[in-house]
Amino acid sequence: MRLSRFHLATVKEVPADAEIASHRLMLRTGMIRKLAAGIYTWSPLGLRVLSKVEGVVREEMNRAGALELLMPSIQPKELWEETGRWEKFGGQLLKIKDRKDASYCYGPTHEEVITDYARNELRSYKQLPVNFYQIQTKFRDEIRPRFGVMRAREFLMKDAYSFHLTQDCLANEYRNMYDTYGRIFTRLGLKFRAVQADTGAIGGNASHEFQVLADSGEDAIAFSTGSDYAANIEMAEAVAPGAPRAAAMQALERVATPTQKTIDEVTAFLGVKPSQCVKTILVRGNDGLVALCVRGDHEVNEVKAAKLAELPGESMLADEAEIVRATGTKPGFIGPAGLPDSIPVIVDRSAAALADFVCGGNQDGTHYRGANWERDARITRVADIRKVVEGDPSPDGQGTLKIARGIEVGHVFQLGDKYAQALGATVLDDAGKAQVMQMGCYGIGVSRIVAAAIEQNHDDAGIIWPEPMAPWRVAVCPIGAAQNAQVREEAEKLYDELAARGVDVLLDDRGLRPGPMFADIELIGVPHRIVVSERGLAAGTFEYRRRGESENRSLSRDELARLFA
Amino acid sequence: MRLSRFHLATVKEVPADAEIASHRLMLRTGMIRKLAAGIYTWSPLGLRVLSKVEGVVREEMNRAGALELLMPSIQPKELWEETGRWEKFGGQLLKIKDRKDASYCYGPTHEEVITDYARNELRSYKQLPVNFYQIQTKFRDEIRPRFGVMRAREFLMKDAYSFHLTQDCLANEYRNMYDTYGRIFTRLGLKFRAVQADTGAIGGNASHEFQVLADSGEDAIAFSTGSDYAANIEMAEAVAPGAPRAAAMQALERVATPTQKTIDEVTAFLGVKPSQCVKTILVRGNDGLVALCVRGDHEVNEVKAAKLAELPGESMLADEAEIVRATGTKPGFIGPAGLPDSIPVIVDRSAAALADFVCGGNQDGTHYRGANWERDARITRVADIRKVVEGDPSPDGQGTLKIARGIEVGHVFQLGDKYAQALGATVLDDAGKAQVMQMGCYGIGVSRIVAAAIEQNHDDAGIIWPEPMAPWRVAVCPIGAAQNAQVREEAEKLYDELAARGVDVLLDDRGLRPGPMFADIELIGVPHRIVVSERGLAAGTFEYRRRGESENRSLSRDELARLFA
Repeated sequence: MRLSRFHLATVKEVPADAEIASHRLMLRTGMIRKLAAGIYTWSPLGLRVLSKVEGVVREEMNRAGALELLMPSIQPKELWEETGRWEKFGGQLLKIKDRKDASYCYGPTHEEVITDYARNELRSYKQLPVNFYQIQTKFRDEIRPRFGVMRAREFLMKDAYSFHLTQDCLANEYRNMYDTYGRIFTRLGLKFRAVQADTGAIGGNASHEFQVLADSGEDAIAFSTGSDYAANIEMAEAVAPGAPRAAAMQALERVATPTQKTIDEVTAFLGVKPSQCVKTILVRGNDGLVALCVRGDHEVNEVKAAKLAELPGESMLADEAEIVRATGTKPGFIGPAGLPDSIPVIVDRSAAALADFVCGGNQDGTHYRGANWERDARITRVADIRKVVEGDPSPDGQGTLKIARGIEVGHVFQLGDKYAQALGATVLDDAGKAQVMQMGCYGIGVSRIVAAAIEQNHDDAGIIWPEPMAPWRVAVCPIGAAQNAQVREEAEKLYDELAARGVDVLLDDRGLRPGPMFADIELIGVPHRIVVSERGLAAGTFEYRRRGESENRSLSRDELARLFA
Repeated sequence: MRLSRFHLATVKEVPADAEIASHRLMLRTGMIRKLAAGIYTWSPLGLRVLSKVEGVVREEMNRAGALELLMPSIQPKELWEETGRWEKFGGQLLKIKDRKDASYCYGPTHEEVITDYARNELRSYKQLPVNFYQIQTKFRDEIRPRFGVMRAREFLMKDAYSFHLTQDCLANEYRNMYDTYGRIFTRLGLKFRAVQADTGAIGGNASHEFQVLADSGEDAIAFSTGSDYAANIEMAEAVAPGAPRAAAMQALERVATPTQKTIDEVTAFLGVKPSQCVKTILVRGNDGLVALCVRGDHEVNEVKAAKLAELPGESMLADEAEIVRATGTKPGFIGPAGLPDSIPVIVDRSAAALADFVCGGNQDGTHYRGANWERDARITRVADIRKVVEGDPSPDGQGTLKIARGIEVGHVFQLGDKYAQALGATVLDDAGKAQVMQMGCYGIGVSRIVAAAIEQNHDDAGIIWPEPMAPWRVAVCPIGAAQNAQVREEAEKLYDELAARGVDVLLDDRGLRPGPMFADIELIGVPHRIVVSERGLAAGTFEYRRRGESENRSLSRDELARLFA
């Protein structure tokens, strides 16, 4: 591409609401332009990148045996009522009425449509397994769209849905998709982790998120220094300490802590470490309050807590009135020792390993010192109910955990029969009996990948694209071409040679001075820059620089040829 | 592709509302499945074809120097109000409210969005000319969606918009796009005509439609047998007869035609030919009624009539009461001879060349015989106001006209400054003065092309794809592979060889009997079929048949290799 025939419109100023690097850089490079809240036009520059990502996703999905189709964006209400999601999906569902007053939505996802397609198309187990995918525009009416295309309302998604006779077959395809996603993100040149994820409201048996690592990421993930273990922080198991609980050495002693309610206040006042304290949280259980006990340096993990049998599927803190009514004590002074018998005490594994600990005194203005489990405090059950922290042992026994930030760009789910059951999607098995199909679903945020890649790969000068998604791989930059015919001709020759070799090359023939020209080429993140100058030609060399490096190299034509062989 | 790993689901029965061949065949092959009225899922088979069409369109648009971008499908009301089309576009505009009660539409076209983009991005004449295009899903809320994807509500379109400083520059790009469209439809293997079209409500200076020829087409087009002249029938010029008007030979004579009102009745009664009669239509003019006179064997062309200065931009027939009031005569007996002076008489060129003609007597129950222009009947103006008929001379003087049916698949327009003016899209010219940009727009109905191609290319057995849009180019069909290892191995070998050579080949490894297998392969329209059979192998040959031909050919492996070199 000759840049003079392209539409490149970089800008210096960006709106103040562009809070993160990718949003700012996509606006500065002109990759996107806002049309309305959360709705963007992808410029020719932006679309070049988006299309490259799309291309890699398509190639790997095809290689994995998935079949591409294209479902409509506009979906009838009746279908969404069959799964109950017309009401349950919430405000993100953009509802529409047509000229005949029939109700539709702009598809935020396609479980309903694909399952309807499958129940009509798939009749026999012989047609299974099959995995249908599409790369298509979706709409979710985010209440607060922001971060550019990172959380847009209209966005490009790859969504795949597989159908199976058995759970084993589903598990196989799940593994196939898991591996395929790994290949996709590896090919795209991204640093990522596949993490165990909570299946949340979508339900099903297993789920992994693919997270692009970036400090600005919204999600926290825990990963091992010694293995490839990684999990969403909500899911990472906090294992029991290796050493058994020490024997009780101290006697139980009530101490006055008149105004000390928080762990920080209590530990400072009593001169103990937070890891020697037990923190007690009262939540609403199925049948009265439930006490959750973790070490003073740990936090309750609400996702884990919500799954306790004693809780109603969610973890809701009791309010002060409820606490006082159930215990006679104000929040801040509650502890497991001497708590009414009616309150189950669920103790985290690490807290359960403590001896001679500090905890609330169940009497306003007091704490206990020298408390011990069994002797002083009842344990209803030991369970993993805390968030992991850096330095925790990895659940797979190899290495310790570190915490990183990530941006979710992919998600694979084993849905089981949730949608197939609701929509009556069955096939006949080999005995001629109707069986509800097992389903998996597999999403990739294609447009979000572009933003995530920038979050992970940029510097003060602009974007540093991984090669597979760069708008061009190489930029040829002539200096003073207007004044020097040899420079112009050599630049053209080099451009033609690289293009003929299939290299995706850009010739900056706009006639700019070196400063603004280099600034643009760095801003838009072209991985390789080759400068053609009078001085270089006199020495028989070209000045080469890899984007992200600070050193130029003088390369001969042969050396350049080898670089882009 | 191995067919056993594909999802092919052909069906025998199609719904009764599938009225045309393409709709029936797309349902029978399973290319599309209806989700709601005018809303279809493209199956893996259908999408293969759609993607090939899309690929050709993209390649040729890129080659022509157009720049691909991607605009949103959801567009804000405010922008449509700037051009006045929020109200004017009519019921096809699907209006939407989001969760914050802001109004949007699902884009049926993108003039507003691209002009908004251009007014922000384009500042200087140095950035011009530029042609932006996208291939994107559109929605038009058709009141009566039908014919499958031929007139769907959700459909895939390529829309391009060019921006220019001058009309000359616009005319150049218009020619470039006209030529590009020719290349696209030629490459796709379609028989088509580029026809002059009415610019209609979109306005502007010039417009051509690209029509795929098919008997089922909704549009009538006139084309020359002696040149490449072609025009939409509304636009085709009816030229004046070569010979001058003959001298008057007969005297004017009033004859009683008590019940004869139509041309058929009058000519039968008086024993003259329709081409010797003048038919007179009274329409509503700017200032009272206007008479339009055409030969008895011709029809008034309403599009041409609407452009007459005497008419208010549309051609509306006067009703009986108006006619009686203005002439004292009932419809059926009106003629140019003796018509009140207040009524202008616009005479078609062919009618104006008549002498001694029959026409209405302007007295109930009578006609004139031996009428002559000037002597008996006033001519206000001679104009081209009729529809052309087969056998008319071509307006370019070469050959005569034939009439064909066509399906509109592309349309190019010179919009001029209509949208740029409304949205204030200006650039600075070389004198630093703001100039409203000139625009062109260029559409292709990508999904409609698929249906149009089928209308043009099918037989009783199914679709006959032009090679460039076939789902696969070649099908390898082994007979009795389950029983004969050699057949199986040779089929696999042939499949592998063709695939390795880059041929888009299908191996039908489903193990069907020849009848159902061939029926499927013919139905889905694969251009080349190669049968591998025990008998053929014994003779060292393969049975080859071109789709659409009735003869098999026995080809050796070498001959096959040459066929797909």
